[in-house]
Amino acid sequence: MEVTNNFVAIKAKIEGAPQESDFELKSEPFSLSVKPGSKDIIIKNLYVSIDPYQINRMKSYSFSQKASEFATGIVPGEMIDAYGVGKVVASGHPDFEKDDYVVGLISWGEYCISQGLILNKLNPLGLPLSYHVGVLGLSGLTAYAGLFEICKPKKGEKVFVSAASGSVGNLVGQYAKNLGCYVVGCAGSQKKVTMLKEKLGFDEAFNYKEETDLHLALQRYFPDGIDIYFDNVGAKMLEAAVANMKLHGRVSVCGVISEYTDSGKRAAPDMLSVIYKRIAIKGFLSGDYLNLFPEFLSTTIDQIRSGKMHVLEDVSIGLENVPPAFVGLFHGDNVGKKIVQLSND
Amino acid sequence: MEVTNNFVAIKAKIEGAPQESDFELKSEPFSLSVKPGSKDIIIKNLYVSIDPYQINRMKSYSFSQKASEFATGIVPGEMIDAYGVGKVVASGHPDFEKDDYVVGLISWGEYCISQGLILNKLNPLGLPLSYHVGVLGLSGLTAYAGLFEICKPKKGEKVFVSAASGSVGNLVGQYAKNLGCYVVGCAGSQKKVTMLKEKLGFDEAFNYKEETDLHLALQRYFPDGIDIYFDNVGAKMLEAAVANMKLHGRVSVCGVISEYTDSGKRAAPDMLSVIYKRIAIKGFLSGDYLNLFPEFLSTTIDQIRSGKMHVLEDVSIGLENVPPAFVGLFHGDNVGKKIVQLSND
Repeated sequence: MEVTNNFVAIKAKIEGAPQESDFELKSEPFSLSVKPGSKDIIIKNLYVSIDPYQINRMKSYSFSQKASEFATGIVPGEMIDAYGVGKVVASGHPDFEKDDYVVGLISWGEYCISQGLILNKLNPLGLPLSYHVGVLGLSGLTAYAGLFEICKPKKGEKVFVSAASGSVGNLVGQYAKNLGCYVVGCAGSQKKVTMLKEKLGFDEAFNYKEETDLHLALQRYFPDGIDIYFDNVGAKMLEAAVANMKLHGRVSVCGVISEYTDSGKRAAPDMLSVIYKRIAIKGFLSGDYLNLFPEFLSTTIDQIRSGKMHVLEDVSIGLENVPPAFVGLFHGDNVGKKIVQLSND
Repeated sequence: MEVTNNFVAIKAKIEGAPQESDFELKSEPFSLSVKPGSKDIIIKNLYVSIDPYQINRMKSYSFSQKASEFATGIVPGEMIDAYGVGKVVASGHPDFEKDDYVVGLISWGEYCISQGLILNKLNPLGLPLSYHVGVLGLSGLTAYAGLFEICKPKKGEKVFVSAASGSVGNLVGQYAKNLGCYVVGCAGSQKKVTMLKEKLGFDEAFNYKEETDLHLALQRYFPDGIDIYFDNVGAKMLEAAVANMKLHGRVSVCGVISEYTDSGKRAAPDMLSVIYKRIAIKGFLSGDYLNLFPEFLSTTIDQIRSGKMHVLEDVSIGLENVPPAFVGLFHGDNVGKKIVQLSND
């Protein structure tokens, strides 16, 4: 059976901040049957993850395109792969069969074809499918690995997280609170700040847009210094955090969203502080920590079921909402994990 | 018995690059006898280490002054403590006696009084006393710990070291060569470059002052990228090194001499590269690795005795040469460990 597959593409390489006009909806004839002898898996996409790092794939050049199998360059006019959850329509692959749920690389489209690379069968474990895109997917693993493996927090330590209401940041803060750390987050609106404190139980939170001096802001919340900084934004916030770190502080660099679209904003942290405080700064990708997935999944599901982990999702519906959802990430529109539901199950 | 003790002091706090006129020779009456009941150790200073980090102690404010017992603020007009080797003239301390050699905190003066803190009896092990100031002292331990503990080099890995003819850099390069790494150093003159290649056996070396684009220079020497960068200088060289690191590269931040006297030169490395290459950047102080001292000493003495480690010393004679020796560090005057011999044994 043949259908029309609608998908989102970029019109051309994007150099600055993305705009909705950089994208187009395209369509192509699409067969829902597997060719005889092929190992293709035909997937109906259900929920797709909207992630800031994709902007680095849309540039003419970004180092990321050479360094990660998730971050290869995106070709204008072509389908864009992305993490998400789908349902198998037909399969020639021995590991997948019709009606299986799958999680992994699908696409910003209604359907996609997979060869089974970076794709797994999904057991929803009685939880909403969308959870497996965010809190139980790569966003969750990123928060878990970046906090626990890289920063090795101890109960009572003082943790700062930027973009704290974002897909990864909100989980970092909750994991750290559940461990018994003092947690402060920053975000870009009063509404988010209130949510962090009142709903997620952060000890403190502040709106960075209302601070004239980030260094002083951090001094206010961390009079004795920061043990751990989970960096999602880079630039001035990283400089201010380094200036306020304690001895033997650890910085896990997960994202630098404020530098993705403006390399002129690069952070210049005081390396003299880095030396004398013996600070460790470590970049990481969640893909290096897939071995932690079972442990991460069981810990996180326990915390969700016991009510200690709130799941923050920001779901738009329909393929046509992918471009505004993506563009909105760079304006801080999302609260929690940004997901687009592409189809009903 | 009372003598006149001459010593070097700063006239006032120093904010920019140090100049000889920032220093003065002072003298004070000094007793060579221990007061009854006191645990003082009276030391005749023999060799003193001249180290760039002291500039951070001479500023009105530097973070270093809060963070390290070695880097407390220096008071204008007062004696300046410094690492070196001396000989005990008289002692009320049970662990030290007359004519013992000692290594540790002495001073930029002819004599000093110690209470035994950061001071050890020295067995010269048949090697020149000056070796215990540099290659077998904190410079050596800094190179050893920063390379082996922080960067964990493996045979065949590609190592870049800046200020490679300096007290720490030359040892880092030699340790790495002796392990079987590919080693490239940079320095500030053709003479140093030749020495690194011909005398110390570096695979390559270059004069950074002759390079218009440090990024391209590093690309030339590391077409497949850098595994380990041992940073002694900070600023643009750190940016270029990060841009040329391989996946899972490690940067050990030992010193940032180009930023000590000009904070406007701070490095702004590309954090997107830090993330996607999973780079680890770690500041450290040798004082945290004193537990490695026995292993470091035995390894280094073996390498010296077998001719695999060249000892590069740059020795001036006489207290009056302390200020020019110190100022010269910031102009790259020294080749190898800068030491001033204050007295004959």
